[in-house]
Order: sequence, then structure tokens, then C-alpha cells
Amino acid sequence: MTEAERDAYHAEKMRKKKEARTRMLATKTEERGLLIVHTGKGKGKSTAAFGMVFRAIGHGFKVGVVQFVKGAWGTGERDILEKFQDFVTIRAMGEGFTWDTQDRQRDLAAAAAAWKQAKEMIADPSYKMVLLDELNICLRYDYLPLEEVIEVLKNKPRDTHVIVTGRNAKDELIEIADLVTEMTEIKHPFRTGVKAQAGIEF
Amino acid sequence: MTEAERDAYHAEKMRKKKEARTRMLATKTEERGLLIVHTGKGKGKSTAAFGMVFRAIGHGFKVGVVQFVKGAWGTGERDILEKFQDFVTIRAMGEGFTWDTQDRQRDLAAAAAAWKQAKEMIADPSYKMVLLDELNICLRYDYLPLEEVIEVLKNKPRDTHVIVTGRNAKDELIEIADLVTEMTEIKHPFRTGVKAQAGIEF
Repeated sequence: MTEAERDAYHAEKMRKKKEARTRMLATKTEERGLLIVHTGKGKGKSTAAFGMVFRAIGHGFKVGVVQFVKGAWGTGERDILEKFQDFVTIRAMGEGFTWDTQDRQRDLAAAAAAWKQAKEMIADPSYKMVLLDELNICLRYDYLPLEEVIEVLKNKPRDTHVIVTGRNAKDELIEIADLVTEMTEIKHPFRTGVKAQAGIEF
Repeated sequence: MTEAERDAYHAEKMRKKKEARTRMLATKTEERGLLIVHTGKGKGKSTAAFGMVFRAIGHGFKVGVVQFVKGAWGTGERDILEKFQDFVTIRAMGEGFTWDTQDRQRDLAAAAAAWKQAKEMIADPSYKMVLLDELNICLRYDYLPLEEVIEVLKNKPRDTHVIVTGRNAKDELIEIADLVTEMTEIKHPFRTGVKAQAGIEF
């Protein structure tokens, strides 16, 4: 194939691709708040959710964030979020990872308090997006009643986006979600002896 | 098991978990810039990279961003990033998705120009993090010489973090990367007729 033939072939292929995409998008007409789940053992679950929070703030939306597990976030994210206090409300109810507290009763109380805050934010239609960061961990340890969580998420206001993060998402949650992404670890620098670093892990 | 027995069992289990984690982390002593790849067909590849960019900015790091495919970003991210112009330099060289331009020669020129910017940023040690957004798409379409890209990334300054996003990451790139995460789509709202929305897709 000559360079010119290759260019012509490419143009034709891309034209068909664009047509197919335009046809596909024309069938997508509904606009509503989504229930989004980021799960899997890989990195990027909370970080992608934070990216969505920043993007929503960029659109001028009000965002609520509930941090179910303390220590899951970096100081970097926090410092940036605090510059946008008019747009984002943060509730950090956790007391540290469960392997730090080693106190199930304290964890149970912290989870219940965080969930109460989450319910209030979800019920408040002024929030266009609510991030329930690491909620899946609380569900996995049975720190919260799964049936109630599912009911609340299923009946969220129509226009509110809710994002749930954490590994081991429950099947019941995946079942009712609109968008589920699994982050899979293919390679991790810990394996080669590199430690957690500012800007990467926190 | 009584509630008290369950609490004691939990405390013991978490104590062991913490010990194991502390031991594991003690072996991780190296600190250096990482080559990070976000790939896969799922969502969150660029969004997680943006989360990392915001986090790095929060730490006061200078960040460079090269957008290899225009239209891949939302206005939301852009609006927020522009509030941090002292910390982040953005180069958007793409001319739109290839199925929009349908012009291979224009795509080739845009990719070459973006890659030139990327090389300059990577060579400049004042950048602590460089995001090469959607570089994988350019590599997939053979818009850039793979061997040269691999050489530059392999020989990046020791302390610089480089993040490469886009589906279909080349094996040669995965091979030299420190951290590779694959985003897999488990459920997507397009399937149920919901359209792209502000704060979610853009």
C-alpha cells in the first residue's frame, strides 16, 4: 500500500467508525443520576472517584464526600479539596483502617455514624454527586446492614450520582449499579521493593 | 460466638494483619519516580490519572500534562486544572479523536508535535510528574515510533513519575512499567440507553 492509499483507507475506516458511533449515541437519550461502583484489587478506585469529584466541581456542581475508612486518602487530595469548600462537603468518620484500630466496637460505631451522614447527603437534592469512599470495606466486614444500604442506594434521588468505592463489592450492589468498573493489578512496584510515595500512594 | 468473643477474635485477626503489613512495608525502602500505566477497556483510566495529578498538585509538585487525543477530557477537569496554573502545564496537541478528523496525515503531525512536548517535559527535572494522556492510542495507530517512546520512558529521570493512559497498552510498555492497572468494564449505562453526562463522561 502506498502512503496515499493508506491515508485513504484510514479515512474510510474512521468515517465508518464515526457513523457507527453517532448512530449508537443517538439511541442514548436518557439523562439521570448514576450509581457507580469502582471495585477490584488494583489501584485507582478512589483516585478515579476523586477525579470525578474534581470534574463535577469544575462543572459547578455541589459534591458530598463520606470517607468510610480514615487513612484511605492522601493529604494531597484533601489539601486540594479544601480549596473548594464552597462546592464540596467532606465527612470523614472512620478512625483508621481496621487493622490499626483492632477495635470492632469502635469500627461499628464509626461506620454507623458515617452511614448516617451518607444518608443525609443522598437525601439532599442540592448534592449532585455523593462519593461513598471505601463503603465496600464496611459492607464486607458486616459493619453496616447490607439490605438497608441497598434500599437507600436503589431509592436515591433520580438526578444524584452516587459513587461507591472499595474492593470486594457485594453482588447485591453490582446488581443495582449502572456503571461498574473493576481495577485489576497487573504490576505493582511493591514487588520490586519500592515504598509508598507522596503523589502516588498518598 | 458471643459479641465479646467476636470482638476479641476480630482484634486478634486485625493485630496479625497489621503485623504482616508492617513487616511487608519495612522491606520497601526505595523511593523513585515510577512509570505507571492505566489501560483496559473500562472507564477511569484518565480520570484516575487526573486524580493523581490533583494529588501531586496538593503536595506542591509541578506537573506536566500532554493530551495526545483532544476531546478525551472533560471541560470540568480543564476548568479545575486551570485554577492551578502555577503547578500544572498543559499541552493539548491532538486535533480530536481520529474518527473525527479522518485525516491520517494531520493525526501523524499532531502526534509528533505532542510527543516532542512530552519529551521536553520528561527531560525537565522540575516536573515531578508527567501525564501522557491517551499516548497508547497513538502507539496503537502507529502514529509514533514505539522503539523511541520506549527508550525515552525507560531513560526518564530517576525521580520523575510518568503516567501513560489509554486502552491497548503495548506489551513493550507494560514490560518496562512499574505499576500497571487494567480498568475492566463490568457494567455500562449506555447499555440501558443513558447518555453521556456532565461530571460523568466529561
